[in-house]
Amino acid sequence: MNTLAIDIGGTKLSLALFEKERIAARLTRPTDRAGGPEWMLGHIEQAVHDWKFEGCGVGFGGPVDFARQRIALSTHVAGWSGFPLVERLKATLGVKVVIDNDANAGALGEARYGAGRGKLPLFYLTLSTGIGGGIVLAGGSVYRGADSWAGEVGHIALDPDGPVCLCGARGCFERLCSGLWLERDYGKPASELLQDPAFVVRYVVHLAQGLKAAIMLLNPASIVIGGGIAQAGERLFSPLRAELRRQVTSWSQARLDLVPAELGNDSVLWGALALAGTTSGVG
Amino acid sequence: MNTLAIDIGGTKLSLALFEKERIAARLTRPTDRAGGPEWMLGHIEQAVHDWKFEGCGVGFGGPVDFARQRIALSTHVAGWSGFPLVERLKATLGVKVVIDNDANAGALGEARYGAGRGKLPLFYLTLSTGIGGGIVLAGGSVYRGADSWAGEVGHIALDPDGPVCLCGARGCFERLCSGLWLERDYGKPASELLQDPAFVVRYVVHLAQGLKAAIMLLNPASIVIGGGIAQAGERLFSPLRAELRRQVTSWSQARLDLVPAELGNDSVLWGALALAGTTSGVG
Repeated sequence: MNTLAIDIGGTKLSLALFEKERIAARLTRPTDRAGGPEWMLGHIEQAVHDWKFEGCGVGFGGPVDFARQRIALSTHVAGWSGFPLVERLKATLGVKVVIDNDANAGALGEARYGAGRGKLPLFYLTLSTGIGGGIVLAGGSVYRGADSWAGEVGHIALDPDGPVCLCGARGCFERLCSGLWLERDYGKPASELLQDPAFVVRYVVHLAQGLKAAIMLLNPASIVIGGGIAQAGERLFSPLRAELRRQVTSWSQARLDLVPAELGNDSVLWGALALAGTTSGVG
Repeated sequence: MNTLAIDIGGTKLSLALFEKERIAARLTRPTDRAGGPEWMLGHIEQAVHDWKFEGCGVGFGGPVDFARQRIALSTHVAGWSGFPLVERLKATLGVKVVIDNDANAGALGEARYGAGRGKLPLFYLTLSTGIGGGIVLAGGSVYRGADSWAGEVGHIALDPDGPVCLCGARGCFERLCSGLWLERDYGKPASELLQDPAFVVRYVVHLAQGLKAAIMLLNPASIVIGGGIAQAGERLFSPLRAELRRQVTSWSQARLDLVPAELGNDSVLWGALALAGTTSGVG
């Protein structure tokens, strides 16, 4: 069976055609923020025109109501709140479509095909324009909580007196550590900032504080970090592991198995492949 | 079937004899800290001498390795690290014994018999000498993570520059909000401090920050607060709910259903009853 996988992020749109579990074709392009959902739908329709597939999975860069298969909110990707994406894609593509937020999709991708294989429960952190989290339980299913809002680690408060986040609260993990805010606060993209070891040493303090909350609550067998910022590699991971070991004292015997996403930029696409094979609230 | 339920806490030992799902007899007394585990075993043996039961569940006030049925660590209850409690109780009582930490037991008790009935997944916070957390999944089972260390919300960092906790880290939720530290920091027991509305308004800021981490990550259908401090009632819960609504902005559509433990002081005993009926790692 062939599957269309779609990753709708804050800065880019990625499409992949899977033949079973192999990427047979792919397209990536920057998001046209001004164009909004109509631009994106048109682009998808045109791009996949000669691709053959029987199902479609979508990872979306914002909260998704999984039971209702609806976009719940769009903070980073403007103009999507209330947009009937699943219905429109079904009508356009003529196949079953399953959507989830990109952090849940990334978590599922890494759990099934990447760094989390055989290491469940897994906590996946996407460190990108925004910050999201996804939890995959020991049985291999995504933990979504009562209202599909589980995993929203980006909005735990690291500093209640800190600067105001897009969500309206102060000192959120996302406000202090995400790519969007790093660039606004320091005037340079995260990729440049992370070239500076002195910056990294300060940055990982908040990053470890946020991860520690997930570790204390979830005691995952693996912690997988994806998203653009994770691509900094050992320049980031080595100081981050050291800081985590400092903050998570020997009192806790929870393991600290912190690794970069094995599927790199493609965790969400692989997760979308897995999603396409699941039973969702509205099919 | 009759069950012996035991709650070993930092300040008190409670025993209950359940006839099916009814408490037929009970005993509670302050912990003799100097006496340690040998005193406690002797006391249990003597107390239950003429009680008839076929199983035993134990909630212990510290981390428990559930798979191995062993006390992993004792911070608040001295002298217990490495003590073979389950083996000794089995030898003494002649029945199957299942142990878990008291927060997991309290969560299970509230999920099955208390405030969490029909409202899963549940997050249970015990606000007492220390602070612990327990997670019950939608299917009714306790989420314990990879190494039995899940739910340890007491050791997330609310203030990485804050005072040092018993675990060695700085500014833990437990360091800032637990009964032990409130009394050390302010020279009065929590029950007295919470009589002062001006104190409560400051106290709930950290309390809400800790709960918010659990809400963002877990999106529970119910949040149940047990332990001695929760007995302050609406004097605490009303300001706490207001502060939570302030910190958890309308951005999040996760529900905020915050209630006191319905089983009051007995959440752990009812959880111990439920534990006695489960299959543990070593039976």
